[in-house]
Amino acid sequence: MKKDKQEKNRENDLLKEEIKAMRAHLMGLQQTIREKGLPIIVLVEGWAAAGKGSLVNELISELDPRFYNVFSPAAAPEAEARYPFLYPYAKAMPENGKIMFYDSGWMEDCVRKLLRREITWDTYKKRLRAVNEFERQLRDGGYLVLKLFLDIDKDEQEKRLRALRDHYETAWRVTEEDLWQHREYKLFGKAYEDFMDKTGEVIPWHVLDGDKKTRAAHKALKLLIEMVEKALEEGRYVGKPFEEDFPLQKLPKLADVDLSPTISDEAYKKELKKLQKRLGELHNVIYRKKIPVILCYEGWDAAGKGGNIRRIARPLDPRGFDVMPIASPTPDELHRQYLWRFWKRLPRSGHICIFDRTWYGRVMVERLEGFCSEDDWKRAYNEINEFERQLTDWGAVVLKFWIHIDQDTQLARFTDRQNTPEKQWKLTDEDWRNREKWPQYEEAIDEMLQKTSTENAPWFIIESNDKKYARIKTLKIVIEALEKAIEEKL
Amino acid sequence: MKKDKQEKNRENDLLKEEIKAMRAHLMGLQQTIREKGLPIIVLVEGWAAAGKGSLVNELISELDPRFYNVFSPAAAPEAEARYPFLYPYAKAMPENGKIMFYDSGWMEDCVRKLLRREITWDTYKKRLRAVNEFERQLRDGGYLVLKLFLDIDKDEQEKRLRALRDHYETAWRVTEEDLWQHREYKLFGKAYEDFMDKTGEVIPWHVLDGDKKTRAAHKALKLLIEMVEKALEEGRYVGKPFEEDFPLQKLPKLADVDLSPTISDEAYKKELKKLQKRLGELHNVIYRKKIPVILCYEGWDAAGKGGNIRRIARPLDPRGFDVMPIASPTPDELHRQYLWRFWKRLPRSGHICIFDRTWYGRVMVERLEGFCSEDDWKRAYNEINEFERQLTDWGAVVLKFWIHIDQDTQLARFTDRQNTPEKQWKLTDEDWRNREKWPQYEEAIDEMLQKTSTENAPWFIIESNDKKYARIKTLKIVIEALEKAIEEKL
Repeated sequence: MKKDKQEKNRENDLLKEEIKAMRAHLMGLQQTIREKGLPIIVLVEGWAAAGKGSLVNELISELDPRFYNVFSPAAAPEAEARYPFLYPYAKAMPENGKIMFYDSGWMEDCVRKLLRREITWDTYKKRLRAVNEFERQLRDGGYLVLKLFLDIDKDEQEKRLRALRDHYETAWRVTEEDLWQHREYKLFGKAYEDFMDKTGEVIPWHVLDGDKKTRAAHKALKLLIEMVEKALEEGRYVGKPFEEDFPLQKLPKLADVDLSPTISDEAYKKELKKLQKRLGELHNVIYRKKIPVILCYEGWDAAGKGGNIRRIARPLDPRGFDVMPIASPTPDELHRQYLWRFWKRLPRSGHICIFDRTWYGRVMVERLEGFCSEDDWKRAYNEINEFERQLTDWGAVVLKFWIHIDQDTQLARFTDRQNTPEKQWKLTDEDWRNREKWPQYEEAIDEMLQKTSTENAPWFIIESNDKKYARIKTLKIVIEALEKAIEEKL
Repeated sequence: MKKDKQEKNRENDLLKEEIKAMRAHLMGLQQTIREKGLPIIVLVEGWAAAGKGSLVNELISELDPRFYNVFSPAAAPEAEARYPFLYPYAKAMPENGKIMFYDSGWMEDCVRKLLRREITWDTYKKRLRAVNEFERQLRDGGYLVLKLFLDIDKDEQEKRLRALRDHYETAWRVTEEDLWQHREYKLFGKAYEDFMDKTGEVIPWHVLDGDKKTRAAHKALKLLIEMVEKALEEGRYVGKPFEEDFPLQKLPKLADVDLSPTISDEAYKKELKKLQKRLGELHNVIYRKKIPVILCYEGWDAAGKGGNIRRIARPLDPRGFDVMPIASPTPDELHRQYLWRFWKRLPRSGHICIFDRTWYGRVMVERLEGFCSEDDWKRAYNEINEFERQLTDWGAVVLKFWIHIDQDTQLARFTDRQNTPEKQWKLTDEDWRNREKWPQYEEAIDEMLQKTSTENAPWFIIESNDKKYARIKTLKIVIEALEKAIEEKL
């Protein structure tokens, strides 16, 4: 017996030595990670009192605090409940060259809500799918993702919870939720297993024995270093495009769109008044029923996006909507997965968000100007469909408008802008440059409309040679969609 | 009688005509406001059911929605309760060239909390002071601020609340709070008056008669346009520096600091272990008592800031602290008042935030590199003292460290970095350039230390020729301050 213990101690000492060496090694790797701009995510899930916090502490102890962050859902504002469930995690994704540790994350979130019956089995399955999509998109965008599960058995958990509660200093750490988990240990065990089963294909899970703290820290460090070194050796990963089966709506090619429809001034005024009144009423209902609404505007320069948006915004209660003009990404946006800047701009439930240009920049300007690789934009069709499905699964109404004109109309409007002093600011050299690339853009837009007009988040081509006609058409589409969403939520 | 009514109608029609013309005029001004980069704040306060929302709607109805935003505290996440009371309003300040409408704001916040007895009379007075400081800082930073109060009498309020409650569609808009205000109409009236009395000196209040909606909208538009045109004529305002009386602590000049103190390796190890253990314990208490802690690091290049921060961070629970490295401002930060980027990074109560460089950049690098005007950085001493007093009034512990070395030590460390491959990244050309400006920096730093070492948010000069000595000294200061704060909160 005594020899066994000595053996164990020796082994432990050896592990500790190695941990020390690995920590120093990881510290040395920091600068390379920063230079190469590798973003790293370490997800630490596991049982209550399994030592998730301590494990994170072990991992970061030699790291430069400017170089990592720890995200803890416990510290996430309650208000995030009014966003899609992945929102807090997506918003916290690290920028290139940094590490984000999630001290429990989307796994605990899904499992706990399922067992608490706060979500249905059907919602749970959709969330599993979203998790797989989210993790794959991160990986394909060059993120390194390490997923750890810290395991302890029921007796060990009891011992630890008891020890925590026995001390005044630590008693507050044991929550009602933890005790409930302990009582329902078996149920949780099954649920954790199920979750890992169904989310291990893209990024594998690593189960660590929380009972043996030193060994767990050792293994975690080893996995982290291996992952980083592999990436440094092989270079930043770029995911290959692939197509998933989304139910798509067939849209005409832009060249085949009849742009002749117009509306008389008189009819326009009458319709506008009626439709805006109706939209104002619906906004109230949307707000009370907490339905999130996302309106996406894309279109040719000078097609009339701004005026169209203004007609939608006019009757809305300003406390309940936002217009998000999307310009070139800022540095902190450029250094993260490309959807991040849209994740963080999502509206709260019950609010309307109008995006003036959107994530579709990826498959238009970024594609044509070479701001991303071919794999990147080809992969984006599918990634965007997934992203939008996550939004509609959350309950959002997502409508996408392509504000369409022909080349002659654009030229006439450019010329008008050039000749009207108050409008000159609207016309830039870039507009003229983009105009020269009309055929390439048309090809990209046609492809985009074909590949991303899903049933849940459809595109609408808005004929805007007559801007008034375009506004009325858009208003009608929005109203119809909101009425449908309200009816479905009754 | 009948003639009177006709007269009134004619008057109303006239007002409406003028409103239409003013709206068109304001729409025309938009582009100039954008070009000149004028940031505009319109604060709309007033009685419940006085028509604040409608008034905002009147003002924005012709504006480009990309050009303004409406902030409504009702829509602010509950979590903001754990920040200084001005936090949500400061975070929402518009960027240059945009308008932010506050659909009720800091006035309602202060008055309601006072009458609800959620804050003491003493806290209320401090908040009044903070409001005056905040508004003056905005004005001095070139913001245009318009403050409106929408007034209705008790009978009118009753009529309106009743009308709202009588309709299913609008009944939800009347809150318990509103009914309580109505019952306590007289009390509220006095409190509003008191608030306006005490906050009207820097930016005047304009009281509008909410009973006469058209007239109120007319006056608001007129005031807004006058304010904008005056600013366009006179150019962007830059506030003059002035000195308020803050209780200051006397600090030595940098040249007089004795940099010889050292610590033995043995003593260092022992002390470090002991102090870190203690700091870890205190972090727990801080967390539970919801005391916010803000640690500010400034210092010469290569003085050892990073290593010092790491020794503080090591024993902290990563869920309860953040390190904020402050680099050059991003475009959206540059286009707002200079303290905005720090407002938005404040920790929640109970959390520790370590700023690696701070708002003091204003009076160091921005002063010396000419990134702001002389008036700007001279005004900043006072503005920063006010900002920090708002933080300590909120309950925060604010400690500021100047990590100090002499020129020889810096040269030795630069040379070492240059000759050590793993450290080369730490040394940039800018470091050498800054070194050449040592005397100018020393002068600026001496001035900063003299003018901003307030009793509530003191500076500590940390002798860091011996980095280990510096770390121990910093740890001791932090521990002592936390112990004091905890004791005071018992």
